[in-house]
Amino acid sequence: MAGASAGTTGIALTDRQRIAWLRLIRSDNVGPVTFRDLINHFGSAETALAALPELSQRGGSTRVIRVAAREEAEAELEIARRFGARFVGIGETDYPFALKQIEGAPPLIAVKGDAAICQKPAIGMVGSRNCSISGAKFTAMLARDIGRAGYAIVSGLARGIDTAAHRSSLETGTIAVYAGGLDRPYPPENKDLVEEIIAHHGLAVSEMPFGWEPRARDFPRRNRLIAGIGLGLVVIEAASRSGSLITARFAADFGRQVFAVPGSPLDPRCHGTNGLLKDGAQIVTEAGDVIATMAPVSQLELFSNPEVREPQIEGDRPMGLPPTDNERARITDSLGPTPVEIDEIIRHTGSSAQTVYLVLLELDLAGRLHRHAGGLVSIDLT
Amino acid sequence: MAGASAGTTGIALTDRQRIAWLRLIRSDNVGPVTFRDLINHFGSAETALAALPELSQRGGSTRVIRVAAREEAEAELEIARRFGARFVGIGETDYPFALKQIEGAPPLIAVKGDAAICQKPAIGMVGSRNCSISGAKFTAMLARDIGRAGYAIVSGLARGIDTAAHRSSLETGTIAVYAGGLDRPYPPENKDLVEEIIAHHGLAVSEMPFGWEPRARDFPRRNRLIAGIGLGLVVIEAASRSGSLITARFAADFGRQVFAVPGSPLDPRCHGTNGLLKDGAQIVTEAGDVIATMAPVSQLELFSNPEVREPQIEGDRPMGLPPTDNERARITDSLGPTPVEIDEIIRHTGSSAQTVYLVLLELDLAGRLHRHAGGLVSIDLT
Repeated sequence: MAGASAGTTGIALTDRQRIAWLRLIRSDNVGPVTFRDLINHFGSAETALAALPELSQRGGSTRVIRVAAREEAEAELEIARRFGARFVGIGETDYPFALKQIEGAPPLIAVKGDAAICQKPAIGMVGSRNCSISGAKFTAMLARDIGRAGYAIVSGLARGIDTAAHRSSLETGTIAVYAGGLDRPYPPENKDLVEEIIAHHGLAVSEMPFGWEPRARDFPRRNRLIAGIGLGLVVIEAASRSGSLITARFAADFGRQVFAVPGSPLDPRCHGTNGLLKDGAQIVTEAGDVIATMAPVSQLELFSNPEVREPQIEGDRPMGLPPTDNERARITDSLGPTPVEIDEIIRHTGSSAQTVYLVLLELDLAGRLHRHAGGLVSIDLT
Repeated sequence: MAGASAGTTGIALTDRQRIAWLRLIRSDNVGPVTFRDLINHFGSAETALAALPELSQRGGSTRVIRVAAREEAEAELEIARRFGARFVGIGETDYPFALKQIEGAPPLIAVKGDAAICQKPAIGMVGSRNCSISGAKFTAMLARDIGRAGYAIVSGLARGIDTAAHRSSLETGTIAVYAGGLDRPYPPENKDLVEEIIAHHGLAVSEMPFGWEPRARDFPRRNRLIAGIGLGLVVIEAASRSGSLITARFAADFGRQVFAVPGSPLDPRCHGTNGLLKDGAQIVTEAGDVIATMAPVSQLELFSNPEVREPQIEGDRPMGLPPTDNERARITDSLGPTPVEIDEIIRHTGSSAQTVYLVLLELDLAGRLHRHAGGLVSIDLT
């Protein structure tokens, strides 16, 4: 069964590396993909940090980008420490093993609780905040039984379905993903629930800075993490155009199994879930439906060693010379508003892969590059 | 759209033929398949009637089988006439066009109302007798909109979902199929509904004799007719092991599209429908789901001329000699409790097809033959 520990041995960041990683991901215009490309190019976060201002300038930035200071990072680490939390880097043992496989996985996450749960296969469970009584009841049954079958239950700490999912998997292990900083649980009334989760060897996870108040636009990022941590996602009672459907979209994009609970066509809380069923989600009327489908998947994921998208371990690497103005112009000119693959740019321009990646980093740090799913990139023509 | 008339030209039985058909189907041990084989072998129902006693005797019957008398048939026709009903033979224009395509379609049905509706493509709608308020409401919406799209709605006149389906399709046309005789609507409180159906150019249909009180064991036969008359079947709120699931099984066996309405896993009235969805039924959350799927099917069925399983038109046919005792023994000995194809028997015994069919008719009329789906036959070893 699925309860076994994966036993993966990961990397371990030094304190100094962790500070540099935190500074890098907290700097302007550095997202997960840029982070990975920077480390791949410069060999370490520290070297990349030193290069950020020049890179963004070469990319055409009209202002100096903000690079997070060492003091800021040290202060955030100290806040985390006093809060009982810590930062885990992608590739480290305590990083949720399924999350590191998604495109654009966060390089660093803040966690509080028992990270041993990250070695368990996890199932996401999400749904309406204003759920029905029977929806909450069914969620509780599912979460309890899926939990007992050896899965961690991951959800978003929201009212309604999320709360029911967390509460009913306290004994077996539950992971709460935040839209804001770890010290800003939302909604506030779920502070007690968070304490219970931690007390029961569960885990709280956030990719946002400490002190960050969650805004509406932060929730899709949280949903992306839920979808990434779970090997499968169960949606219970979701209205049309609801956040749960965004989570389901992410899960499908990540190749994760999406499950939906059927409901009355006359109940708006079931329009989203019934829609998922029409789109090919697997119907769930009992926990056994999820457990039977996931059993082979969770075995596969636990014991195979799939290609993992994570930054290369830091080390000394030859950096190469900066591109000439000519090369930079040719690469930039080859881009437009239509997303293209980076391999296409390399073929089209005849520049080396290293040079193309570097120019893209420059444009990215200058705030001019758009990154799309599948590694595609585009720029706006001004 | 689906509303067009099929414009099929059928056969027309003479009064004398109709009496003979009614006698034959009302005689002991004569089911629809036996009826067809008898007419195919003897060329007419009258000739077959004359042969029945001898056939059953040759088949090993220990008692004389009851052959319906001319007077009985004439009396039933008179009852029907006074009741405002009539008998329609398979292949006649007023016979529901999709029903004649099923294996073992009834050779004669009693109908009351406007048989023009039989030229419309029909959709079956069935479900729980003790349905929920929202189940009845959703049924009404579906029946109304599917009816407006040009389909007749066929159901079983039962309480709950069936009643809602009939009521909401009165204006567009509805077909009520009975488990008992046409003069024995069930449940009795739906007598008024039947009158409304007839008054609105709908149709009441039964394959059972006038005066037949429906018993529990008659309902699967009624369900088979509902499934056969509809080109598709929508199941709304059905418990596990309910009659609606029997109807769905028949519909699937007939190659008809099965639709199911999703519902809460916690509501026992939805266990059957959710189970159908798990087994591959198409999910329905609005009438458009049914209409979009059925549009191409109903066009196909209306304008194509598929192979129709119906008795050959009566006529003079060479009858051949009865089989010898040797042949009969060899054919009978080749049968056992495992159902086999008739073609296999022909190959195995080396007898002519005509002889094999005749021996099977003898065994059938003697009450010794079991007929199975797909035309397979077996006998019990005594």
